[in-house]
Amino acid sequence: MKLLFIGFGNVARKAVEILTVERDRFPGVKDLNFRAVGIFTRSRGSLACGEGLDMTATLDEFKAEGHFPAENLHYTDMSSLEACRTLDYDVLVELTTLSIEGRGEPALSHVKAALDRGKHVVTANKGPVSFAFQELSNLAESKGCRFLYESSVMDGAPIFNLARSSLRGARVCGFSGILNGTTNYVLARMEQGEPLEVGVRGAIEAGIAEADPSHDIEGWDAAAKTAALANVLMGAKMTPFDVERQGISLVTPEEATAALERGERLKLVCRGWEEDGGVRTRVGVESIVRDDPFALVSHFGAALRLETDLMHPLIITQEAPDLYDTAYGVINDLMELADQKGWGKCK
Amino acid sequence: MKLLFIGFGNVARKAVEILTVERDRFPGVKDLNFRAVGIFTRSRGSLACGEGLDMTATLDEFKAEGHFPAENLHYTDMSSLEACRTLDYDVLVELTTLSIEGRGEPALSHVKAALDRGKHVVTANKGPVSFAFQELSNLAESKGCRFLYESSVMDGAPIFNLARSSLRGARVCGFSGILNGTTNYVLARMEQGEPLEVGVRGAIEAGIAEADPSHDIEGWDAAAKTAALANVLMGAKMTPFDVERQGISLVTPEEATAALERGERLKLVCRGWEEDGGVRTRVGVESIVRDDPFALVSHFGAALRLETDLMHPLIITQEAPDLYDTAYGVINDLMELADQKGWGKCK
Repeated sequence: MKLLFIGFGNVARKAVEILTVERDRFPGVKDLNFRAVGIFTRSRGSLACGEGLDMTATLDEFKAEGHFPAENLHYTDMSSLEACRTLDYDVLVELTTLSIEGRGEPALSHVKAALDRGKHVVTANKGPVSFAFQELSNLAESKGCRFLYESSVMDGAPIFNLARSSLRGARVCGFSGILNGTTNYVLARMEQGEPLEVGVRGAIEAGIAEADPSHDIEGWDAAAKTAALANVLMGAKMTPFDVERQGISLVTPEEATAALERGERLKLVCRGWEEDGGVRTRVGVESIVRDDPFALVSHFGAALRLETDLMHPLIITQEAPDLYDTAYGVINDLMELADQKGWGKCK
Repeated sequence: MKLLFIGFGNVARKAVEILTVERDRFPGVKDLNFRAVGIFTRSRGSLACGEGLDMTATLDEFKAEGHFPAENLHYTDMSSLEACRTLDYDVLVELTTLSIEGRGEPALSHVKAALDRGKHVVTANKGPVSFAFQELSNLAESKGCRFLYESSVMDGAPIFNLARSSLRGARVCGFSGILNGTTNYVLARMEQGEPLEVGVRGAIEAGIAEADPSHDIEGWDAAAKTAALANVLMGAKMTPFDVERQGISLVTPEEATAALERGERLKLVCRGWEEDGGVRTRVGVESIVRDDPFALVSHFGAALRLETDLMHPLIITQEAPDLYDTAYGVINDLMELADQKGWGKCK
């Protein structure tokens, strides 16, 4: 399986580590063999090698240098988009970060370029699935290839997999979830009387929030996940801009402690539901009663309640996810492709 | 898709209702067409008809009479086992009730007889999967047919589906769960100071417990589910008799109220874990702290925490399941077969 990586941040490196230097610890992935024919980053250099890069050396070099130096034998000046359009690969592994302002770009163009050539795509980026799911899935279908995005919502918790493969015949008619770790953490700190800024600093120090966490605080990350869920699970055709959105920036520690005193907890909740023949979505702060499982979602955890026509609600809760969970979502998608294509050992 | 039903209790009738008289409400199942070529019961008469029974009339007759009368044109004296061995069908839908004393019989023989002929099996009975999973799955594989059992644990919540299709590469290394509705309900009543007998009566009146709920109270139902999970998810080769088992019959209302007073709740918890290169399992009463999601599992709800090597724990919670949920598990399995075999409309 020839992989082209676009983006080589924490998630990409952890996925590669699991599949190479750590693979002895994980018997289930031992049979997944791959060649990385390219690794492209925005500002840290790019490598390309049709024969496949030596991933142990590549990881070591990136770790030591913080980037790929121009002296690397396989260094290339090719752009990521050109790589998607011209290199010889089986699967594009798109792991750049979400851009709301860019309406999902440049990830969206990378994904389109790959699918257009009939190449499979695995992505953890919420952009493509939240801005253009129907278009991309139609394109993938017309080209006979797969567009997979398990890690884009709830890290590796297999929610899209579940909906695709394990809920046959049931129609998802609504969902709600706590899907953004940073705001969940900050609200918990505010329950202790701490101001928003202190909680945000804590989230940054814990390595969960970005240096500029405004996308989390203003609810954009949650809105992108909500749009992704509505598009995939409920057939909506929306973007994050269509989600009714309220962040947590106006919440005060007093409100959070008052909720706690009356036995409730403030949570940033994502919702999707059917209305007037369409799908409506909202991200907003809600006061959750103590005996709702959502009240127990701890600092960086996440939870999703799925409502279907044939079953009572199902809640999937993810406890304390970290980088392994997000990386696992990517690996789960890669293994689905490997199984489907019969790509096993030594390809 | 030609179906042979063995057992025609609440679950079987609800599954048939969803696929016939109620199908307009559920667009996802509209394309699943089937013929029931036989319905066999232990003491309420049996019908067989190669052309397919008129299911609306059959449901009406059973509802009115409480059994199939010998006057029915399709009435037969054939035994269930003979039906499994001789009738022309595609899928055995085994919906008899669990027998611990009978070590999974007669369901086990029905399933073996079908698989032996290369016929697919869908069952909600915990017997086959908890007493003979490895043997049956090997048999199914050697005959090129499927053995499916989604409803046997946690009703329709797609836990086996999830583990089979949606957790590629991840190894389940442990689980814990609240899987028996009756004991969960009775323990909640005991927290209110009510004696076991009163709680049991309430469960019977609510239609959840059997007239003889000793299998629930003594932990046998939970042990069967635990063995099933250990066999399927962790590759164990055990029976319910191998599960370390403690029921709730020795719990007093005083213990339950005392737990509640210290902010905890007594729950009958099923556990499986790796030890000394094998799998160990236990069913027992545990005092669960308030901020564990298990503490929120309400009366008849259920929850399962899955531990894997590549992800942090995933908890699947089922809120207020009823007959639709169990019936859905059967339908989910049938649709998997229909998809796999290309059995769609009008077969």
